[in-house]
Amino acid sequence: MKTQTQLTVRYAETDQMGIVHHSNYAIWFEAGRTDFLKNTGVSYAEVEARGVMMPLYELTCRYISPAKYEDEITVITRLKALSRVRIILSYEVVNRKTNTLLAAGETAQAFTDRALKPLNAERAIPEIYAMIKANGGNSDGN
Amino acid sequence: MKTQTQLTVRYAETDQMGIVHHSNYAIWFEAGRTDFLKNTGVSYAEVEARGVMMPLYELTCRYISPAKYEDEITVITRLKALSRVRIILSYEVVNRKTNTLLAAGETAQAFTDRALKPLNAERAIPEIYAMIKANGGNSDGN
Amino acid sequence: MKTQTQLTVRYAETDQMGIVHHSNYAIWFEAGRTDFLKNTGVSYAEVEARGVMMPLYELTCRYISPAKYEDEITVITRLKALSRVRIILSYEVVNRKTNTLLAAGETAQAFTDRALKPLNAERAIPEIYAMIKANGGNSDGN
Amino acid sequence: MKTQTQLTVRYAETDQMGIVHHSNYAIWFEAGRTDFLKNTGVSYAEVEARGVMMPLYELTCRYISPAKYEDEITVITRLKALSRVRIILSYEVVNRKTNTLLAAGETAQAFTDRALKPLNAERAIPEIYAMIKANGGNSDGN
Repeated sequence: MKTQTQLTVRYAETDQMGIVHHSNYAIWFEAGRTDFLKNTGVSYAEVEARGVMMPLYELTCRYISPAKYEDEITVITRLKALSRVRIILSYEVVNRKTNTLLAAGETAQAFTDRALKPLNAERAIPEIYAMIKANGGNSDGN
Repeated sequence: MKTQTQLTVRYAETDQMGIVHHSNYAIWFEAGRTDFLKNTGVSYAEVEARGVMMPLYELTCRYISPAKYEDEITVITRLKALSRVRIILSYEVVNRKTNTLLAAGETAQAFTDRALKPLNAERAIPEIYAMIKANGGNSDGN
Repeated sequence: MKTQTQLTVRYAETDQMGIVHHSNYAIWFEAGRTDFLKNTGVSYAEVEARGVMMPLYELTCRYISPAKYEDEITVITRLKALSRVRIILSYEVVNRKTNTLLAAGETAQAFTDRALKPLNAERAIPEIYAMIKANGGNSDGN
Repeated sequence: MKTQTQLTVRYAETDQMGIVHHSNYAIWFEAGRTDFLKNTGVSYAEVEARGVMMPLYELTCRYISPAKYEDEITVITRLKALSRVRIILSYEVVNRKTNTLLAAGETAQAFTDRALKPLNAERAIPEIYAMIKANGGNSDGN
């Protein structure tokens, strides 16, 4: 399963090089992630309301071609690995008009409680965990 | 009393016009506000830990001259008005090298509980309220 | 004429109060502005490519009710005043589901050259100026 | 050689998890990078004025421990590799009070012209390239 999120580059996202500042891709990945979870049937707002946080512990991004103001962007989000303690997602950022790959990256997130202590997501939010596992389309089975 | 906060323009704060994007001034005002409170003897982190939030209900900013990457900036923060239910601060953003006024603005903040319901700050955090009143240098006495 | 821009609150836009940080409304206004111009038949990217910048010289925002993560937002943008040297737009930010007004504000922008010197937009970009005037739905006629 | 950059966590940098949003570390790395170059005797603003851009082509960040509002932060920046076509820097983000490592990462940047086409920095900005090489404290010599 892959999720497609559409967005338009905001002026505030550009920098004086005339392109989107690289820090925004992490935010676009996050928009993709929100939609990815929604597509598996899970609202991340609800996950947090249940006391489960998903802080990042790793981010990587390769910047391949610049995005510019008003560009129409698609973020493609895929599940790379899911276990009881963490979730790894991968992202591709594409210019929708030219179909150019602009960037590609990955995030690794832990499942934690509100105090940011690791927890077992399968135990804490079993039916949500099951939905991501069933609908996310991939898993390393741990 | 006025508080002076020093900062250096970050590359990420610029936009494709080659100047600091206007949305950042609200963030600089906030950095000034944090220091202003600290100078009256109050940590805003502590105010929140006591259950008192200070959400903005109004912001105004006039942009007079642009700031650029690597510019050394001073934010001058002053108390304009304080009452039991709200605090109004004013700000001047100055280029430290050229002494040019870049922007000037105001913020109005309510005192609220965690659910963002208005509260009486004099009652909720009396000694903190007294410190702002005593050291803030101005008040409309309401 | 009014333009409606739809967006979903991003996690990165929230702050530790659990609501959207106030600085983001300026960015949402800008997204509204981009669409407003597009609706009059003008691409702001094209305006800049023609050598005309539109830096802000004033911003006001009243925050009425907080926005939260994943909220579906509409930004309603209207022309308040247009003259050869400046454009004033007004904005309403609405929660699409509850139809609550979250914030309202205004921006004033100058027409300038690339060096940020004021210019006469009617002379510099006559057909674009005419399109905004004709399609923007309002003007103070100066 | 390593450069130390000091900053204070801004309220706007927090998210609803109550910690600094992960996208800000890229911006802190950049603040460290600006100071690193300054320490080698180079102003990045001047590099750009000479027509040389340094867009990122890769970013990695590991998040180890969260930063919170008002935390005093040090960003430690080091040169990992320098060649005619790219520069790789590494970063450590430390809580200055507790001396805890909060995050560590790397950025890879290309040297390009204004159109973002790769160029040879040794040829385009020889004396600046020499200063980074001489004072940066490391280089892979390519």
